[in-house]
Amino acid sequence: MANKDISIVCFSGDFDKALAAFTIAVGAAAIGKKVSIFFTFWGLNILKKKQGRSFIGAGFLDRFFNFLMGGLNKLPLSRFNFLGVSPNLMTGMMKKNNVATLPDLISSANELGVNLVACEMAMNILSIKKEDLIDEVKEIIGVVTFLDRSENAHIIFI
Amino acid sequence: MANKDISIVCFSGDFDKALAAFTIAVGAAAIGKKVSIFFTFWGLNILKKKQGRSFIGAGFLDRFFNFLMGGLNKLPLSRFNFLGVSPNLMTGMMKKNNVATLPDLISSANELGVNLVACEMAMNILSIKKEDLIDEVKEIIGVVTFLDRSENAHIIFI
Amino acid sequence: MANKDISIVCFSGDFDKALAAFTIAVGAAAIGKKVSIFFTFWGLNILKKKQGRSFIGAGFLDRFFNFLMGGLNKLPLSRFNFLGVSPNLMTGMMKKNNVATLPDLISSANELGVNLVACEMAMNILSIKKEDLIDEVKEIIGVVTFLDRSENAHIIFI
Repeated sequence: MANKDISIVCFSGDFDKALAAFTIAVGAAAIGKKVSIFFTFWGLNILKKKQGRSFIGAGFLDRFFNFLMGGLNKLPLSRFNFLGVSPNLMTGMMKKNNVATLPDLISSANELGVNLVACEMAMNILSIKKEDLIDEVKEIIGVVTFLDRSENAHIIFI
Repeated sequence: MANKDISIVCFSGDFDKALAAFTIAVGAAAIGKKVSIFFTFWGLNILKKKQGRSFIGAGFLDRFFNFLMGGLNKLPLSRFNFLGVSPNLMTGMMKKNNVATLPDLISSANELGVNLVACEMAMNILSIKKEDLIDEVKEIIGVVTFLDRSENAHIIFI
Repeated sequence: MANKDISIVCFSGDFDKALAAFTIAVGAAAIGKKVSIFFTFWGLNILKKKQGRSFIGAGFLDRFFNFLMGGLNKLPLSRFNFLGVSPNLMTGMMKKNNVATLPDLISSANELGVNLVACEMAMNILSIKKEDLIDEVKEIIGVVTFLDRSENAHIIFI
């Protein structure tokens, strides 16, 4: 009965919300649903090749914001981040309880055929290029294309 | 014409977002919709029996995070929290305007048959047990089960 | 094939999330979808006539919170707000890349027939009156009415 697709708009770049997005995606894909995640704004940080802080972009402001935001290893917890210590503590608690960590979930999503796409407009604003993102990202599209493809999906904004 | 169900994923543990979740739930249930709320991550704080701060869990980190997060009386406003003063001020403003407060909404939700369920994985990570949650929570389920039950519902992520 | 409507609940008053709400709304309306945005809680700040800080409301607390929150020119970035400097920097980056700014998007939304409605309950709590909001807001309704009208829509909570 898994006939409705799942379309996630991953706007947030928080560690905990990224976990939620990928947990939903992997779970839904595992029961045979067609799942897409559209990464926009802060969510793009999850997909950067450089997982630490790095200067991406051409202008001063792009470089400044991209450095501040960082990549996968710098995602903050949305509360009690404690200068970035908490996401590591949380990952430890997840390993201890045999729960898949964020990098585990990203590779599972890829293996299960979850379609990872990035938002064209947000990439333009922040001067992020396709080559700055991990290879799992196959497409750069606009939000209208994403909505259009999601006609028969549950749309979940995270 | 109220034929579509409402499935809310309550990820947030903010006072204002909890209000939004329960206002939608109670309103929808009142017009005859079948409503479920799946509480995960910070959202679990809304359901803890101990409404203040308390040490829940077995390990040091679980106990530390659960103490920090606290329960229903410690939910922060997502902005201008002022060390927890604002949720009380806001509750005062709600009473003055005869708007249902959060505890009112939780009991209305229960009376109207809103199905309150808690996320198995988040409970594992934070070492929260069923007996730590209020009795209104009838089930502990995984996100895939929740999605599967929500095939014919609007899914709202809060 | 644009047969499903889009119903956005704009709960957030963050600059970046308001951008997301209006970008989705304008894009969807441009391909012929029927779009409504229900502004509630912090989201009401986006619609205030007075775009700076102003004392709205009758009681001390209403006036205090409304002053703190401010209007369209005071929307904070959800991260790295730097006392309000960042939304201006971001707007500069958008202009440089020929991306529509927030005021542009609001007028496009209005021209394309996006239905902007405000939440009755949140207005009561914060003592905001219809005349405090921009003229593009045609209706003040309850959340149940909004849900009822959204039976055939994607509901997106931002």
